[in-house]
Order: sequence, then C-alpha cells, then structure tokens
Amino acid sequence: MKDLLIRTISGIAFIIIIIGAILWSPVSYVAIMCLILTGMMYEFLSISLKGSRMAGTILTIATGIAIFLFLFFINGYGMQPLYLILSLIPVLFIFISGLYVKEYNIHKEIRTPEGEIRMEDNGYERSPFLLSSLLYIAVPLSMCNLIVFDPEGNYSGTLLLSLFIILWAADVGAYCFGTLFGQKNGHRLFPSVSPKKSWEGFWGGLLCAILAGIILNYTGLLYITLLHSIILALLIGIFGVFGDLVESQLKRNFGVKDSGRIMPGHGGMLDRFDGALLAFPIAVIYLKFFIII
Amino acid sequence: MKDLLIRTISGIAFIIIIIGAILWSPVSYVAIMCLILTGMMYEFLSISLKGSRMAGTILTIATGIAIFLFLFFINGYGMQPLYLILSLIPVLFIFISGLYVKEYNIHKEIRTPEGEIRMEDNGYERSPFLLSSLLYIAVPLSMCNLIVFDPEGNYSGTLLLSLFIILWAADVGAYCFGTLFGQKNGHRLFPSVSPKKSWEGFWGGLLCAILAGIILNYTGLLYITLLHSIILALLIGIFGVFGDLVESQLKRNFGVKDSGRIMPGHGGMLDRFDGALLAFPIAVIYLKFFIII
Repeated sequence: MKDLLIRTISGIAFIIIIIGAILWSPVSYVAIMCLILTGMMYEFLSISLKGSRMAGTILTIATGIAIFLFLFFINGYGMQPLYLILSLIPVLFIFISGLYVKEYNIHKEIRTPEGEIRMEDNGYERSPFLLSSLLYIAVPLSMCNLIVFDPEGNYSGTLLLSLFIILWAADVGAYCFGTLFGQKNGHRLFPSVSPKKSWEGFWGGLLCAILAGIILNYTGLLYITLLHSIILALLIGIFGVFGDLVESQLKRNFGVKDSGRIMPGHGGMLDRFDGALLAFPIAVIYLKFFIII
Repeated sequence: MKDLLIRTISGIAFIIIIIGAILWSPVSYVAIMCLILTGMMYEFLSISLKGSRMAGTILTIATGIAIFLFLFFINGYGMQPLYLILSLIPVLFIFISGLYVKEYNIHKEIRTPEGEIRMEDNGYERSPFLLSSLLYIAVPLSMCNLIVFDPEGNYSGTLLLSLFIILWAADVGAYCFGTLFGQKNGHRLFPSVSPKKSWEGFWGGLLCAILAGIILNYTGLLYITLLHSIILALLIGIFGVFGDLVESQLKRNFGVKDSGRIMPGHGGMLDRFDGALLAFPIAVIYLKFFIII
C-alpha cells in the first residue's frame, strides 16, 4: 500500500514535468527529451555492456542526441535533411573505438565441466548493443520531432502530449485491470518473458487507451477524426505492450530487475518509457502517412 | 603462385562486373548494390548469429534494401525524405520477433570449472547484431545514392566509381607493398587484430590511393580540385584500413577465416567490401559538406 502511494506520487510528479516541458516551449521540449534520451540510453548500455566501453557509450549517446537535434531542426527550422548524415561520423568512431578495447582481442579457450572447449567470453559479442541502442532508443524518440510542428512550422506539443496520455492511460489501465482481475485466476499474456502480465490487464489497458483517445478527441487536443483517434489508441496500446515485453526480455537476460533507480517506485527511465519505444514510431508513421497532418 | 593467379583473375572479373553495372544504368547500379548489400548482410548475420534468427535475418535484410531504395528514390527521383521512416516498420518487427525466440526466454545456470555460477549462453546477447548490421552495412552502402545523381537529377556513376577505384588502389597497394617490404622485417600495424598487416603495407596503400586520386582527377572522372582529390584519397585510404580491421576483429572473435566463399581467392562479399563500410560514409560526407558537388 505504501509502495502504491510512492509509485503514484512519483509517477504524477514525473507526468507533470513532462506535460509542462512539452507544452511550455520548444526549448523545454528539447531539454526534457534529450534528458530522457540520455537517461534511457545510459541505462540500456549500463545493463547490456555492464560498465565496459565508456568511450563508446559516450560516443553513442552523443550520436543519439545529434540525431534528435538534427531531426528537430530539419522538421521545425528548415534545416536540410542532408545534415542528418553528419551523425554518421561518431558512428564510424564507435566502430573504430572497438578496435582499441584490449579484451576484444584476447581469445582464451576454456574447458566446460562437460569437457567441451569454448572461447571465454571477452565481451565482444555484446558490443553491437552500442549501435542497436541508436535504433532502439534514439531514433524512436527523435521521431517525436515529426509531430511537434504544425504545417506552418510553429511549435505545438499537443499532438505529442496526446500520444503520451494515451500511453499512460494504457499503462494505468493495464495495471488496474491486471491487479483487479488478472492476479489470481487471470490468463497469462506472455509468461516466458513477463510472468506478471495478464490478458485481463492487456484488454483493460487497451480499453483505457481507447477511452483516452476518445476523450482527447472530444477536447480537441487530438485534432484528427474520431475513427483515427481510436485506431491510433489501439496501435499505441498494442505496440506499447510489445515495447514493455522487449524491455522485460532485456532485463531478464541480463539479470536486472529495474533499469535504474531515478524514479522511486518506478525503476529507471527505460522502465517508464519502454512502451513508447515501439508505440511512438508506429503512431508517428500512422499520423504522417494515413492522416497527413 | 597459383593462389595469386586465382585471386587476380576473380578479382578482375568482379571489378569488371561492378564497373559495368555502375556505369551502365541506374537499374544495373541498383541491382548490383542490392546484391552486394544482401550478400554482405547475410554473411555478417551468418557469422554473428550462427544461423539462428532466420526470420529476423530476412526482416533485417529487407529493411536494409528498403533503406537503400528509399534513399535512391529520394536522391534521384524527388521522393519526399519522410518516406524513409517507413523503413522503421520492419525494425519494430525485428524487436518483436525476438520475443518469440524460445531460447532467449530460457535462463539456465551452469557451474564453471572454477565453481563460479553463470548463466548459460542462450544467444540473446548476440541479438543486437541484427540491428547493428543496418548501421554497419545497409546505411553506408545506401550513402552511395547521395553521389550518383548530378544536381539536375541525372544518374551518373563516375563519382562513385572513383571511390571504388581509390579503395581498390589502396587495397592492391597495401597488398603489394606489404608483400614486398612488410613480410619479414616489417613493422606490425595492429597485431592484436590483424597479424599480417604491416605499416609498410599501410603506407604503400595510402601512396597508391593518392596516385589513383591524382590520375582520376587528371582524367576528369573525379571532377573536383586536385587538393580535394588527394584529401579524399587519404580519407578513403585511412578509413578503408579501419574498415578492414573492424571486419578482421569480427571474424577473429567468431573464429571464422573468410566471411564467405563467393569469390575464389577473396573469401566473401564482406571480405571484399569491408573497407568501403567505413571509407564510403566519410568520403560521401566530405564530398557533400566540404566540396558541395
């Protein structure tokens, strides 16, 4: 019960900060997004690389921020799309920095209890987590830049805010429905990855996402047709759950419970925004290609 | 001696095919580049994922081809850059497909001979090679699309051909100089990754790259100033060697000698074009931002 209280308070505080930053100005939007991007990438790389590759980690996060900023200026301030390729320069140095990791060039044979001979783990096989963090975290978050400017190029965070609200509604809905109906005799959603998730929670989350979409539509914040709002909410609800599962699988494979400790009761940034990483790209693509905003 | 003959003949045949395809027409250019891209990605993923993740491999190669084609049509045929984000759809499904790999969700503890308890390798740690192959292979090759259209939008392969010729000149130069001067008393370039490479070969390669750049400049094929041609040749020479080393490190860590067997005497596609993966992006960025072609 105390846990739930802490979780609720810190969750609400976080939500207020994000809503404020998105609505206030393009500067506060960029600041909060770069903070989230940095936090998520740092957590992701801490988990997967276990503290190795500090130079690579810094280069990768810098690349992620560069991609975000380029897409911000390209979409809002008429910068040529060509500039995006400059973010490939640090990528080249991420590859090159791998050459200088001493452990990667030591290949020691070990014998397992079964008498099998295999190479000892030198960490090399985890090195592509650096690059994959760009496609897993930096690119999805950078996609938000495509929907924060109206056709005249003026900043407007309302559409992005709608995506966040739908995602949070789905989260809260899944949590409540899951706790109420899914805990005891519930049907497991994906037990091999996330034992606590139930189908009851999934449907509850989807229901709340759709309700949020409808309400946002009526308030005018989500200025697309009602049908589009519902489809958008469905996409965010479904891909948000996949996003949760992808992150759970990561944590289970690296034996961590929370991605970080930045938010009391919620774990890390990655725990909080895992759903967005798969939900937002599909939502942005839907908004851009099927609704033409 | 017989090896050298086979190597020379198959090398020349391959070079003729590539030169012909690049010069002939945009269609033959796209065909050969997609073939190279597919071959390289397939080899890279076969080495790193050891045959697991077939669905993921197919999705990833499809994404790579999509990125290449989008950049081709965006740069040459006025397609909106926005279309590029459609290539994120298969990326989302690459993530989701990982959830359904049974092994990734089994976590078995094993005891090492030293009595240490660790998790048995279930392949999950190698899964990001899928996404990193996009940034390692697909994006660099797709960058070629930025330099195969003149400002009027007409296809012209001469600039790209110049990059290939400089890269090949560096390769041949490094091979010849390395064999002549570097084999016995030579100075090792990067022994921990590639024991056969010598500084003598490196300088010879750089010399041949610069010579190629100067000759291409005089013939008018490389229609930039002489100074720019020399700097371009230097960049290709240096980053080409880093590209070789990055691929060597990959092969050594996975215990393979050649990336494939498609070219007699040369190994696989990845062996042949490894240098281009780091050299071409930097060359394209230099051409686009410092020369404004």
